[in-house]
Amino acid sequence: MHDTLRGTAILAHGGAPTHVINATLAGVLDETRRSTEITALYGARNGIGGVAGEDFFDLSRQDAARIASIGRAPGSVLGSSRGHVTDEDCERILRVFEAHQVRYFFYNGGNGSMHTALRLTELARQKSYEVRVIGLPKTIDNDLAETDHCPGYGSAARFVACALRDIGADNRSLPSPIEVVEVMGRDAGWLVAASALARRDAGDAPHLIYCPERPLPGEQLLADVDAVYRKLGRAVIAICEGQLDEEGQPFGADLADPHSFGYRMTSNLGHAVAEFLNERLKVRTRSAKPRVLGRSSAAFLSETDRDEAYECGRAAVRAAIEGETGKMVTLVRQPGAAYRSTTGLAALEKVAAVTKLFPSEWIAAAGNDVMPQFLDYARPLAGPIEPHPRLQEVFVEKRLDR
Amino acid sequence: MHDTLRGTAILAHGGAPTHVINATLAGVLDETRRSTEITALYGARNGIGGVAGEDFFDLSRQDAARIASIGRAPGSVLGSSRGHVTDEDCERILRVFEAHQVRYFFYNGGNGSMHTALRLTELARQKSYEVRVIGLPKTIDNDLAETDHCPGYGSAARFVACALRDIGADNRSLPSPIEVVEVMGRDAGWLVAASALARRDAGDAPHLIYCPERPLPGEQLLADVDAVYRKLGRAVIAICEGQLDEEGQPFGADLADPHSFGYRMTSNLGHAVAEFLNERLKVRTRSAKPRVLGRSSAAFLSETDRDEAYECGRAAVRAAIEGETGKMVTLVRQPGAAYRSTTGLAALEKVAAVTKLFPSEWIAAAGNDVMPQFLDYARPLAGPIEPHPRLQEVFVEKRLDR
Repeated sequence: MHDTLRGTAILAHGGAPTHVINATLAGVLDETRRSTEITALYGARNGIGGVAGEDFFDLSRQDAARIASIGRAPGSVLGSSRGHVTDEDCERILRVFEAHQVRYFFYNGGNGSMHTALRLTELARQKSYEVRVIGLPKTIDNDLAETDHCPGYGSAARFVACALRDIGADNRSLPSPIEVVEVMGRDAGWLVAASALARRDAGDAPHLIYCPERPLPGEQLLADVDAVYRKLGRAVIAICEGQLDEEGQPFGADLADPHSFGYRMTSNLGHAVAEFLNERLKVRTRSAKPRVLGRSSAAFLSETDRDEAYECGRAAVRAAIEGETGKMVTLVRQPGAAYRSTTGLAALEKVAAVTKLFPSEWIAAAGNDVMPQFLDYARPLAGPIEPHPRLQEVFVEKRLDR
Repeated sequence: MHDTLRGTAILAHGGAPTHVINATLAGVLDETRRSTEITALYGARNGIGGVAGEDFFDLSRQDAARIASIGRAPGSVLGSSRGHVTDEDCERILRVFEAHQVRYFFYNGGNGSMHTALRLTELARQKSYEVRVIGLPKTIDNDLAETDHCPGYGSAARFVACALRDIGADNRSLPSPIEVVEVMGRDAGWLVAASALARRDAGDAPHLIYCPERPLPGEQLLADVDAVYRKLGRAVIAICEGQLDEEGQPFGADLADPHSFGYRMTSNLGHAVAEFLNERLKVRTRSAKPRVLGRSSAAFLSETDRDEAYECGRAAVRAAIEGETGKMVTLVRQPGAAYRSTTGLAALEKVAAVTKLFPSEWIAAAGNDVMPQFLDYARPLAGPIEPHPRLQEVFVEKRLDR
């Protein structure tokens, strides 16, 4: 049995939004409404700074129909934040907890946010302030440890898979273009790998997929593209925004604002790669960079992703009421042929600031494709995707001499 | 009364595909099947070159259920082509017409394709070869003369409107970013203008919209963005890939393969504009470039656009059977509050190689937005788009001193 702990709950968002971060909010709110222990749910405006600044939506007083609708909308309706959280911020947050009788803190974010959640858990323990801290996973990059996958990944994967299917249909329509598609994911290959999910036949796009876990020598890229182009007369390449060459260089891409993130990030890798191919292969090469559309384009919401994000929210509330703290909710894939998941819990220590890279055994030996095991893993998360129909190959006999 | 003309029909695609070029194919085929005059319908593979090379799908022998499904798929299932058609090509095409008893030629493309259709009409007349040539409009750029709008535009407009709505939801979620979204349309503003279609409230993205018909001085861009950023703490800018500054320069963007198109085209205008803003305003600015996704992303098919594209295909066949030649099918908006269109015909002479620019009276005086008349024009073409829901503004009272 656990102690009953009555008080206010806070939900805050950390890092970039996803298709389903609002679904998790709906799950937290719906489960909160069922509880007698949680007396009110506050939503921090604009992330952890909103907690420190007592800047809260009163989520308990929101209309239920509107919340249901918000639970299918992209972006963070609370607002989120990025950047370093200082020790002073943490001290301030504890004072805010005391002032509002906050006994439950739900922090929905990536591994950086989980690190902040861990610091707050430890500081509260030191100060003997009783608050239960539960992390909620969220990242399109799918790079959190301890969980089978992350809410947000399935929908972003669906976007990438459909984008490459559709760009592939466009690419087949015109003679001899090479198309480079820049995919998000920072330095993890989970999203760029999802570009393979809608392929059906040999010759379907993308023809080459590069995961940033493996350096891509420029000469290998040229040889790969040249081989596809000679065979098909076209080529579609899916490449991660964080891809580096054998010398750790981003193909001449510009660095995006290197100071504001704390990690190195390029802003036009796809374009730089296209220019490199233009220059060296002398074949018309263009690039697309959907960027934030990949985490916000509402049409690509994966129903599985949405449902799981919602259930994570509910599970966090239940776990906290049952006395858990210092944990992150995880998704646990169940055995069996049909896909099914449940939720679990992992210690924040095991996920804070840890990055789960794309498994090297899921990268094809040639380094330019993914293995079938990855497709089995990711398909149920992205949901069903139909390939586009094509004409039957019924041709007319020629009547003229050449 | 018209003369009955029995023979084969050819359908060919010209220029880049759209969401609905296959819907027009389905319309042509379905109407052909109803006719006794047209004995077979051939689909040219890979555009006009497929006609010259007698490289034809036999569309008459395609399965009807598959054609219905193809009529909702992006890309060109026939394949299309770009580039100059020589006089020799035209002579060869006439010989192919003779060899296959082709009496009907349907050419689905933009103003360049209409010019080719006109040349073929004239050559056939000179040679007294009886063939009825009907152009079918197609372009996401919406820049064909004589027609109210072009099949392909409504779906591409829907994509752009939803993209800006969704990127706007993402942009509201994080502090202080400026987002530049590069929109297709070459040197016509029709598509970038469609970025306004999903706005509901003041403050909704995009906050600035630039049509390439009006030069954009760099200093005006800086002042516009600075004003939005000071007011909202963020800014989303929709800008056309073909936008030029007051000196006719593309903000330092790279030229895309200037020789292969016959017109000047940049390959990274959005990125160049973002770098310019980063440099001058010192605020973190990123860019997105969906590019070909805007004409292929199947999720954004506009039902109106699809239906109209299909009806254009049917109308072309009916017009040809009734004796018309040297014409392009047009869409004619009907008077009345509820949107309704019918098809009409225009002489190929009036559309061949003519570009219909975005009307200057639909650009706001400040040059950074569109006028409501444009929204009335474009909304029914893109179809209904729901804005994303937001939280009710119910806040919690602060309890701590600053």
